[in-house]
Amino acid sequence: MIIGRVVGNVWATRKEEVLVGIKFLVVQPHGPDGKGRGNLWWRPTGWGAGLGDMVIVTQGSSARLVYGEQWPIDAAVIGIVDSVEKGG
Amino acid sequence: MIIGRVVGNVWATRKEEVLVGIKFLVVQPHGPDGKGRGNLWWRPTGWGAGLGDMVIVTQGSSARLVYGEQWPIDAAVIGIVDSVEKGG
Amino acid sequence: MIIGRVVGNVWATRKEEVLVGIKFLVVQPHGPDGKGRGNLWWRPTGWGAGLGDMVIVTQGSSARLVYGEQWPIDAAVIGIVDSVEKGG
Amino acid sequence: MIIGRVVGNVWATRKEEVLVGIKFLVVQPHGPDGKGRGNLWWRPTGWGAGLGDMVIVTQGSSARLVYGEQWPIDAAVIGIVDSVEKGG
Amino acid sequence: MIIGRVVGNVWATRKEEVLVGIKFLVVQPHGPDGKGRGNLWWRPTGWGAGLGDMVIVTQGSSARLVYGEQWPIDAAVIGIVDSVEKGG
Repeated sequence: MIIGRVVGNVWATRKEEVLVGIKFLVVQPHGPDGKGRGNLWWRPTGWGAGLGDMVIVTQGSSARLVYGEQWPIDAAVIGIVDSVEKGG
Repeated sequence: MIIGRVVGNVWATRKEEVLVGIKFLVVQPHGPDGKGRGNLWWRPTGWGAGLGDMVIVTQGSSARLVYGEQWPIDAAVIGIVDSVEKGG
Repeated sequence: MIIGRVVGNVWATRKEEVLVGIKFLVVQPHGPDGKGRGNLWWRPTGWGAGLGDMVIVTQGSSARLVYGEQWPIDAAVIGIVDSVEKGG
Repeated sequence: MIIGRVVGNVWATRKEEVLVGIKFLVVQPHGPDGKGRGNLWWRPTGWGAGLGDMVIVTQGSSARLVYGEQWPIDAAVIGIVDSVEKGG
Repeated sequence: MIIGRVVGNVWATRKEEVLVGIKFLVVQPHGPDGKGRGNLWWRPTGWGAGLGDMVIVTQGSSARLVYGEQWPIDAAVIGIVDSVEKGG
């Protein structure tokens, strides 16, 4: 899993029928210093996550467990981060 | 999922029999500023997507849900983007 | 699999129900010289791994074998490293 | 999927029994300008592809659909490219 | 699949029970010029591969086909390279 911040929404009216009603979020991955970095990824929303939220994103076939085995997605939000404790 | 623009078509007459009739698109991934970046990837088309369209692409085993479980593909177009709203 | 050091914990109270009670670790991948490098990844804990431990992390669908097939995770700790012997 | 050119063969007599008789190709990924770039990857051959051919390669679990579900491979040639049309 | 050289062993006594008795190798991926490059990855051994051997490594869910479907691994050695022929 990675952690990232929700920085946008994607609108797509022409899409796979099973995806109708789903919201796609633009998530910017975050590094250990809390700053955004790398590329943005677009992911289906979950857990009522919205703009500005820091979220946990799972990738690959595990993303289908969140919505249903027949969803053709490769990433999904599985939680909203409260805080990160550093150390070690 | 990632978002990218369709910038080409690939022609291949010698291929797996199940792939006969499929069209392969060249998709250039897009970054948060709307500009193309990174490498191009070649992906089977879907949703009537054509040159110039901005599309949503799913990767990995989920791509097989779009065409059929027996398709040996690792990427597929699952939607055409209307617009992206930034914020957060 | 990769090897990395546990450098933090992630707290998330709003998450998929199946994930309640799970602890997410921040793992920093390590290179051949024993120094940390690259990005941090957040992964569910396992094996009682805690801050400062060097761990082996498995990625992708194999991570679900550690906790259960219905867990929407894409990475998991599968062991704690005692030592690394170099040569060859 | 990616497109690349076959630039070598790999010989390995000691390997998993199911792989006996298979030929491994060295494939160099190609970028949008038609030039090779990035790393080389080694992949099992298919479709009679040989040195100098431009091929379409599928990665991940989909590669197993080309040879058989019990093949421990993560990449396979699924077609030979005739031409690429650019635009968009 | 990728090709790499075995450059180390990893010792881990605290690990998933199914992994007891397995040996983890440190494999350094090799480029087309025969020189090592990139990061090291740690992978379970196979085929009696040892320090200094050049090996073929499969990644992702296919790695489980080598040891058994319930092994929580994401990479495995599937062969030992005799030689690489360049051309094309």
